[in-house]
Amino acid sequence: MNGLSSRSPDLAALIGPVHLGEAFVLAVGDDPLRLAYSTAMERDEAAAVGLDLLTPDDLGIGPRGGSSGDSHLGALWLRALEASGLTAGRVGVAGSGRAGELVGAAARLSGAGWQVVAADDLLRRLRKRKTRWEVDEIRRSAEGVCAAFHAVAAVLADVRIEGRELRSDGRPLTAGDLRRAIDAQLGSRGLAQPEGNIVSLGAEAGVPHTQGDSGRSLAPSEAIVVDLYPKDHLFADCTRTFCVGTAPEGLARAHRLVERALIEAVGAARPGVLARDLQANTCELFELEGMATPRTSPGGTRGYVHGLGHGVGFELHELPGFRSESEAEGLLAANDVITLEPGLYDPEEAGYGVRLEDLLLVTEDGTDCLTPLPYDLDPRAW
Amino acid sequence: MNGLSSRSPDLAALIGPVHLGEAFVLAVGDDPLRLAYSTAMERDEAAAVGLDLLTPDDLGIGPRGGSSGDSHLGALWLRALEASGLTAGRVGVAGSGRAGELVGAAARLSGAGWQVVAADDLLRRLRKRKTRWEVDEIRRSAEGVCAAFHAVAAVLADVRIEGRELRSDGRPLTAGDLRRAIDAQLGSRGLAQPEGNIVSLGAEAGVPHTQGDSGRSLAPSEAIVVDLYPKDHLFADCTRTFCVGTAPEGLARAHRLVERALIEAVGAARPGVLARDLQANTCELFELEGMATPRTSPGGTRGYVHGLGHGVGFELHELPGFRSESEAEGLLAANDVITLEPGLYDPEEAGYGVRLEDLLLVTEDGTDCLTPLPYDLDPRAW
Repeated sequence: MNGLSSRSPDLAALIGPVHLGEAFVLAVGDDPLRLAYSTAMERDEAAAVGLDLLTPDDLGIGPRGGSSGDSHLGALWLRALEASGLTAGRVGVAGSGRAGELVGAAARLSGAGWQVVAADDLLRRLRKRKTRWEVDEIRRSAEGVCAAFHAVAAVLADVRIEGRELRSDGRPLTAGDLRRAIDAQLGSRGLAQPEGNIVSLGAEAGVPHTQGDSGRSLAPSEAIVVDLYPKDHLFADCTRTFCVGTAPEGLARAHRLVERALIEAVGAARPGVLARDLQANTCELFELEGMATPRTSPGGTRGYVHGLGHGVGFELHELPGFRSESEAEGLLAANDVITLEPGLYDPEEAGYGVRLEDLLLVTEDGTDCLTPLPYDLDPRAW
Repeated sequence: MNGLSSRSPDLAALIGPVHLGEAFVLAVGDDPLRLAYSTAMERDEAAAVGLDLLTPDDLGIGPRGGSSGDSHLGALWLRALEASGLTAGRVGVAGSGRAGELVGAAARLSGAGWQVVAADDLLRRLRKRKTRWEVDEIRRSAEGVCAAFHAVAAVLADVRIEGRELRSDGRPLTAGDLRRAIDAQLGSRGLAQPEGNIVSLGAEAGVPHTQGDSGRSLAPSEAIVVDLYPKDHLFADCTRTFCVGTAPEGLARAHRLVERALIEAVGAARPGVLARDLQANTCELFELEGMATPRTSPGGTRGYVHGLGHGVGFELHELPGFRSESEAEGLLAANDVITLEPGLYDPEEAGYGVRLEDLLLVTEDGTDCLTPLPYDLDPRAW
């Protein structure tokens, strides 16, 4: 049984890109899935899904709609279970929704004799291998990402270096200017950025998840890390690092190592490989070059400080997992979609970060890169 | 205590537009709020929020990050409660997250002696009146909506009527063409459409929530209902109805009535008015004109078939509620943001829908319209 609404990745994986206000799916053994919805006005949207339906009538919802009283959702769940001819037993819940509402609904089911258990992991595993439609949607998001990176590179290739400033159209270029170029490319393709994006500069770029201040001006010889993860129905995810003017040797060397790590990881990724083994290979490579890694400096902020990648789909981070020892969660399989994103960081001393990230479809014998972009630091090489 | 991540409207209202992977806020009596986050890499983002912090260290999260084992979230909640010096008692949960994870976390707290109750309503009420920053953000989204409507009107004003077709650039104009014009305007302003939009035609427009098929071609004398509800940080929401060529008398009359209903509702909206009374006024107006309403035909699909409006903010539908008898939820107050959206529908016989929706900031003595657009059916009047 699934949580609320098509804002739930689990639910979206079962019913596709449909907008329903309050809805859940009931899965009983090998029976066909049933979609329950509670707003009569949404009958056409619900019917278009193509599953068996539990209508507002079936759920006992009057014409004025549901009450906002005590565990309305719990009442709907019980009614759906009854309408399916079930008596109290064990029921798994997954999906997404309001914390209080879900906790209240679970309590109501418990009160009626049901044993409520978490089924998040079951759904996450079901979502690991992508359908053809899902891959097509990820590919479409990735095409938007590629267009946005080319737009960023074009802006950066066109700046003038004046002292410690990069100037464009006679004024200092800011991270916000790059974001406007990105938003225009993504927006015109219907891609949203619900998780934001990263355009981080210099020492800012040295902390991997810092989104970066749009007001900051760009400077020559600084790292510019751009990490984009937009979606329409499904996400794409890709990172490049730029530098305008002469790159300091530390930054240039880090970039060479990161590029090598990415190319080696891509070469090793194929069905049957455990994702965590790719992470181990990358640590090995960086350690041989004298860099700290999560193995040698757990919790460190310098060197290689994060995981190598993650699955991508209805959520930005999903299976396969790059820490998991479980084959169900961590073994690469055909039609998984993953990112590989080695990076090196020096937030304190040299004040840089470098990360390169590609989005890959795992195929029968390797991977297909969905973000075929240059790796160059120098935007003029793009 | 709040659910997961800044994808939660409740959490966003407390910590603003920050992107954190796993985070929650702990509110203990009148103590300052504390923000708990579980990824060390996100320390800069978390610090920028300006609340007291519970760091990954405080939460007992090792350098390798949290486990995905049994109720990781429940363990974090317990640790945060302990770190705040609390002993088992009553704890309210709100926010959003994964169903199984939340149910599991609540069970873990219950096992440790806590009484877990839903606090969704508390947070929804806190979010009813908007801060200045929130109003500014809604206004920014509304400006994008207005630009998109002007783009749609410009496309429609420029078509050629050829028989039963509307042609533009020598080919039939589709709902998808209108969506492209909308996406470009919204996208260039960084506005996403996480709930989609409505561009519905003729009989399609007769069912209020039908999003409309992008492949359908536009025809003269048909209703074209466009309902846009994009967001960056907060939503805006606005609807207009167009008709190219001569509008049939049924449609034209419905449009006149809906426009009158909207103007009367806007005139009556001010602090101290119960939103449901505005709905009653609108029903009265339509009933006097012989139209069915939810009062005379509950559950009907013809005439006026829905509520008059809703609050708008971090969620598309929030308080004030137009059905509520409670003053805390339904009484208009200064700095509430609401929509008013009367509509008339005839999906079966004449095959049309008409809806006009404005977004309004409730002021000290009335309302301020955030979507000052023409109401005209004819796009050439725009």
